Amino acid sequence: MREITGFSNPLVKRVRSLRDKKHRKREKLFIAEGLRILTEAREAGILPEMLFLARDARPHDLAEALIAEVEAAGGDVIATDSDILSKISGKDNAQALVGVYRDQSTDLERIDRYSSPIWFVAQAMRDPGNLGTLLRIGDAVGAGGLILVDDCVDPFSVEAVRASMGALFTQRIAQASWTEFLAWLRTGPGQLVGTSLNTDLDYLAPRYAAPTFLLIGNEARGLPADYETACDVLVKIPMMGKADSLNASVAGAVMAYEVLNQQRRQ
Amino acid sequence: MREITGFSNPLVKRVRSLRDKKHRKREKLFIAEGLRILTEAREAGILPEMLFLARDARPHDLAEALIAEVEAAGGDVIATDSDILSKISGKDNAQALVGVYRDQSTDLERIDRYSSPIWFVAQAMRDPGNLGTLLRIGDAVGAGGLILVDDCVDPFSVEAVRASMGALFTQRIAQASWTEFLAWLRTGPGQLVGTSLNTDLDYLAPRYAAPTFLLIGNEARGLPADYETACDVLVKIPMMGKADSLNASVAGAVMAYEVLNQQRRQ
Repeated sequence: MREITGFSNPLVKRVRSLRDKKHRKREKLFIAEGLRILTEAREAGILPEMLFLARDARPHDLAEALIAEVEAAGGDVIATDSDILSKISGKDNAQALVGVYRDQSTDLERIDRYSSPIWFVAQAMRDPGNLGTLLRIGDAVGAGGLILVDDCVDPFSVEAVRASMGALFTQRIAQASWTEFLAWLRTGPGQLVGTSLNTDLDYLAPRYAAPTFLLIGNEARGLPADYETACDVLVKIPMMGKADSLNASVAGAVMAYEVLNQQRRQ
Repeated sequence: MREITGFSNPLVKRVRSLRDKKHRKREKLFIAEGLRILTEAREAGILPEMLFLARDARPHDLAEALIAEVEAAGGDVIATDSDILSKISGKDNAQALVGVYRDQSTDLERIDRYSSPIWFVAQAMRDPGNLGTLLRIGDAVGAGGLILVDDCVDPFSVEAVRASMGALFTQRIAQASWTEFLAWLRTGPGQLVGTSLNTDLDYLAPRYAAPTFLLIGNEARGLPADYETACDVLVKIPMMGKADSLNASVAGAVMAYEVLNQQRRQ
């Protein structure tokens, strides 16, 4: 363990720059904060390359265990001030632990679709909170991961990591163009299921077949028409009120629990 | 219609102050933004007391209709600069329409529990995005409204209004202490359903009885033990992964769609 006290320390500046997508891409690193999320990562077998901790934080067994493992693995453990942690995380009340992790994304070709009966596919998802929440839902329903098509928000942004509550360490994450994704999907079994306003088929009606790929459209526009056409099944979630749509991650949860419940009934 | 051009105009300052909860409480007014949400309100029969619009915005039929109705109802229609709209809404890219509405909350005693088979009850909900999303889910499942117990975030904050996508104009909203809520609940029929980690009862198992009150606990701590004890039914949503909880509004959606689906099957 070593200490850093100055705001102008090059490492502090470098880690702080990871709040910017451009720097994350270049360094292939990202930031995760807080004992809860860092412990999720550790339990998934993933340790940070650098671990920043508040010098004045109360000792905690899980934090001590994490520090020991990071040091044993040759990682950099840095004690510092809570002011500097706030500077890194961009929050006034920073967490007492900040980890810097290697990019967790994978290539589409390296995804084993048989490893899980449910997968999420997000199309042009723009809100980091929605994306992180979708990862958390994926973890809850036993999904294998999240495939991002078109221009989605960065899953390794501080906001998305926070909303995922650590699920980005247990879910596979791949990025691809729509054409690449469709080509890969059709090389094997896989039912592509979209939700839409342009169908009368209730989402409870179909028998979903594993692996099921749940396609979630952009928050404002939904799915493009030709993406809907490419789906094996297009369903609607009933809407009883004035509004015509659910929040994207909420729609994903309603769909995913129906697929999970059908599997559980078998 | 009249025009306002100066940042220092007293009305601009007054409306801008409504971003602060203290001022909202005192004035019993709040801000909603954007044609979509303002049109939801209008379709629910609710017009703003003041309507600010960008002088240079493209004319839109729905906006024209709204302006005409607000003027006919004696409301104040104010054309102004997009800079001033940004100042009011606190966003760089402000919507071209900002409405100032009368507080939409109601007393618990004025809620007709027979008017809907589903009601949400949020306990110490702290995130305005969660609260707004819960209102939007309520609209989607045909819920009657949302009862806020303990120290919840203000449902009329700009963030909550935005996340509700206008559902706060169609859902009843009441605030009460836990004791007041329980006393009111037990004056008539109503099944209080909580989600918890402290039970093995799967959420698909019970037959829910209308009116069903879905109790959603605080984001970080869940429900207090004595609140769980007061529930008629305590269920768990299955979690297949590493995490032990869902986002509060997501859990609300999963529960509410199961209750709705049971009603639809009858």
